[in-house]
Amino acid sequence: MNLLIVGSVATDTIETPFGKVENALGGSATYSSVASSYFARPGIVAVIGNDFDKRYIRLLNSRGIDLRGLQVDKSGKTFHWSGYYEGDMNKAHTKETCLNVFETFKPEIPLSYRNVRNILLGNIHPALQLEVLDQVRKPRLILCDTMNFWISSEPRLLEKVFRRVDIICINDGEARQFCGIDSLPAAARQLLKLGPKRVIIKKGAHGVLLFGKDSFFALPAMPILKVKDPTGAGDSFAGGAIGYLARTGKIDEAAFRRAMVAGTVMASFCVEDFSLWKTSRLTKNAINRRASLLRACTRTPIFRV
Amino acid sequence: MNLLIVGSVATDTIETPFGKVENALGGSATYSSVASSYFARPGIVAVIGNDFDKRYIRLLNSRGIDLRGLQVDKSGKTFHWSGYYEGDMNKAHTKETCLNVFETFKPEIPLSYRNVRNILLGNIHPALQLEVLDQVRKPRLILCDTMNFWISSEPRLLEKVFRRVDIICINDGEARQFCGIDSLPAAARQLLKLGPKRVIIKKGAHGVLLFGKDSFFALPAMPILKVKDPTGAGDSFAGGAIGYLARTGKIDEAAFRRAMVAGTVMASFCVEDFSLWKTSRLTKNAINRRASLLRACTRTPIFRV
Repeated sequence: MNLLIVGSVATDTIETPFGKVENALGGSATYSSVASSYFARPGIVAVIGNDFDKRYIRLLNSRGIDLRGLQVDKSGKTFHWSGYYEGDMNKAHTKETCLNVFETFKPEIPLSYRNVRNILLGNIHPALQLEVLDQVRKPRLILCDTMNFWISSEPRLLEKVFRRVDIICINDGEARQFCGIDSLPAAARQLLKLGPKRVIIKKGAHGVLLFGKDSFFALPAMPILKVKDPTGAGDSFAGGAIGYLARTGKIDEAAFRRAMVAGTVMASFCVEDFSLWKTSRLTKNAINRRASLLRACTRTPIFRV
Repeated sequence: MNLLIVGSVATDTIETPFGKVENALGGSATYSSVASSYFARPGIVAVIGNDFDKRYIRLLNSRGIDLRGLQVDKSGKTFHWSGYYEGDMNKAHTKETCLNVFETFKPEIPLSYRNVRNILLGNIHPALQLEVLDQVRKPRLILCDTMNFWISSEPRLLEKVFRRVDIICINDGEARQFCGIDSLPAAARQLLKLGPKRVIIKKGAHGVLLFGKDSFFALPAMPILKVKDPTGAGDSFAGGAIGYLARTGKIDEAAFRRAMVAGTVMASFCVEDFSLWKTSRLTKNAINRRASLLRACTRTPIFRV
């Protein structure tokens, strides 16, 4: 286990213009861990309820994900999200959020996880994110993902988290909201002042921006003819990115750029089908081929007037 | 003269979070021709009224733009647009559009222009775009730009134009609107069936997508800390792109990609100040430096799992 992932495990009921799934496997820790499993050896800290389908455990096992930190809370059901997408599907509409056992979830890091080198702090209450950091010893790299809900309700706690992590991963709208600035480069500059090595701004179908103190990288998303379900794309991106960084051990600009490629490729597979149907059944060859394609279609020739 | 540009010449009154200008030089033909003038020898076909400031003529002259096709209609005022931008400025809000002499404008291509090799059909009524094409002899390359207004009011005529051009340049929202499809790759595929060599989808601050029958290129926009006024960015992009293609004479994938760089760089200068204040005073060195920067910050390393 060289990558600790804290977040949610959920069942999702999702409707898109291309179909509907009920109680499919979802959750930020799930998407991230499966995506990272092609690069690193992830373990998750999350909670499930008394209704969790055993086939889903088998799916996570099949990807070699360490489940020693997966708590089973018999007192209730698994976190459930129900929602739908329309049109260009760039916005999730929530029908229902049932926190269930996730409501009282306290991340407990197993002793055997406490020396872990790499951490992905998925989207949970910033107070819990801080508790996770208090339980581990000197990790090499911490990536933090968040969402608008915590930005509006817990901005101060979230800032505390941001000050303790190496990589902030955030949506474009959320970066604007947190910083109160419309310009993304200006927002990234402000976030970098909190101390992280890199700020990643995710723009969905428009790709990602990677900001360092003296570096900048922009990577478009893969062109996907038929996006079936965008759920989990951001989590798959984060999982692929930190998974690659856990594997390579390097943290120079080239390594971070490759991590953006890993994340982009994993997100592109994720959106091509519902739930983890595609992301859980990939080969390294398929990942390499798509990474080559991404490189080819972003190759900018030398230009001189 | 190796590039004919047909479009509007206007005076604009614009307010953004960074300031306000009144009766500044604007218009699609203006932005496009100035941007293209660093690469090609453009001439414009457009109309101005009895109020047009002589300093604006001097500005166009200073960029070597051929004005033999610029009609002066003494019967009225120059086309005037007044509008404002808010927040992230990705949407122009129109306060007032006074077509003035532009309302009865008929593009007349001077005899000396009729053998021109390259054409930019700026945003005017598709019927007029067709009239332009009927007046010229076998151009090498025609790029057509359009806008949502004609897509809703004249879709059939616009399709006729699309069938006669080599490059369709269109916004993401407009491509979705024209094709009735949400997926941009699918919309591009549909547009390519009309016959053009390339379809360029402009996504504002998110960059551009270049689609060919068997090729795809995605280029992010330059990161600009302070966008002062986005007016004319799309026209500057189109002008830079077709200007570069007019200059190089090539139309292979590498040439098209370099044209995307030229357009992106010119658009990035455009938004850094109001009107043509910045775009009209550049050096080739400044353009080359920015193109190098763009290449550096989009360089994707080789990736292998």
